[in-house]
Amino acid sequence: MGRVSLVGAGPGDPDLLTVRAVDRLKSADVIFHDGLVPPAVLALAPQARHVSVARRTGPKALSQDEVNRMMTSAARSGARVVRLKSGDPFVFGRGGEEVRALADAGVPVDVVPGVTTALGAPTLAGIPVTHRGVASGFLVVSGHDRDVYGPLLAAVVPGTITIVVLMGMAERAGIQAALVDAGWRPDTPVAIVMNASRPDEHSWFGTLADLAIGRERAPLQGAGVIVIGSVVALAGTARPTATFESEESTWQPTTIPRR
Amino acid sequence: MGRVSLVGAGPGDPDLLTVRAVDRLKSADVIFHDGLVPPAVLALAPQARHVSVARRTGPKALSQDEVNRMMTSAARSGARVVRLKSGDPFVFGRGGEEVRALADAGVPVDVVPGVTTALGAPTLAGIPVTHRGVASGFLVVSGHDRDVYGPLLAAVVPGTITIVVLMGMAERAGIQAALVDAGWRPDTPVAIVMNASRPDEHSWFGTLADLAIGRERAPLQGAGVIVIGSVVALAGTARPTATFESEESTWQPTTIPRR
Repeated sequence: MGRVSLVGAGPGDPDLLTVRAVDRLKSADVIFHDGLVPPAVLALAPQARHVSVARRTGPKALSQDEVNRMMTSAARSGARVVRLKSGDPFVFGRGGEEVRALADAGVPVDVVPGVTTALGAPTLAGIPVTHRGVASGFLVVSGHDRDVYGPLLAAVVPGTITIVVLMGMAERAGIQAALVDAGWRPDTPVAIVMNASRPDEHSWFGTLADLAIGRERAPLQGAGVIVIGSVVALAGTARPTATFESEESTWQPTTIPRR
Repeated sequence: MGRVSLVGAGPGDPDLLTVRAVDRLKSADVIFHDGLVPPAVLALAPQARHVSVARRTGPKALSQDEVNRMMTSAARSGARVVRLKSGDPFVFGRGGEEVRALADAGVPVDVVPGVTTALGAPTLAGIPVTHRGVASGFLVVSGHDRDVYGPLLAAVVPGTITIVVLMGMAERAGIQAALVDAGWRPDTPVAIVMNASRPDEHSWFGTLADLAIGRERAPLQGAGVIVIGSVVALAGTARPTATFESEESTWQPTTIPRR
């Protein structure tokens, strides 16, 4: 019997993988990875077979059941399997479902936490999600389904905490409406951090009133994290002033463009 | 001029540091660390001077201003300074304040995200903070000050999301009262994960009704993360079934006791 490790890949830069994640990759026989995992991370495991199980791309989308069956089958054949997920495996990644399915099938499984993009993205853009006297907590929601995020956003007392929305780029108008309807000020600072920690990282800073603007005014491409709240205004002062190259890393230094 | 890197140390196990965090530690001249950073992490940087700046321990508590001055002074003397914080530097760590103070002083500063204990602890205890159909978001708050967490907890529609409380062990009765008063069911599943990822990790599983029980019934020692919500009940099924030893790690394999 092999095994499966659910591994968080972090926001994208291989340097933001955990040491344990790198270990798992280097000893893997096969890696089932999401579409968001960049080639630079997969390049850490040239010995392994790489299988994309992105659910929304390719000629044939895989169902969750199919992914579970592929992992179970590989582990039963004796393989050391890595299930590589962008960010953290238990933040909107169906990680819990996969662990349950594997455990039910008798497959040994462990989970390696990763830097969630929900926090890595604002941090790299200089936005502290908490800040004394400004925000004493943060809410992370998925922007995938308005029926789900709508009630969650409506339940927050406006302005009290930081809101981080993952997978919400296509729902910016809905998110804006939900918050304004709930009483959030239209001039609440908002940031969108695209492709955090990757060579093409770029950010947009604006207000809640502008969140729903079109691509012509904010040419945002890729995976975005939306950060809403007064802490966004701290990015100007709390922004890191430098990016140091790694001195002992075996990977290419990462260039993070700064606006 | 030297520099300062604010580095997230993750929940405790050195294997859960990011690759970049390890790089920063290995090239550091001096490390200013919190009280929660374990010796095993500091041991990665034997070449550096280690200075504890824990605010609540020792004969003389350091103020934030004093810590800022110490870092600035060290950087101005040419040192490569690491400010090592448990978890992620921008989650309740005053990281934003420190970056601002250093930037104002003209010191080059960067921030290395870490695995926040708010997510690492539940993950390692087998609790997915999000789960389709159970919780589509999570709120992270500090349990340090009732005047702060009270209104935040009261604003959440009961049962809709997962709540994670950091630094809340001393305020369990207050947290329980705030949630029950807000309409949360007393039988809502609750977990307390102590010393996540450390050799003495241990967890308590119960309900909101039992959250305020005394030490005689729940001998919890150390730093605890409180997780509240239906996802906690998934720990039995979504719990990892194995902990694999690192095969290429240079550190001691970590033994995580499981209940």
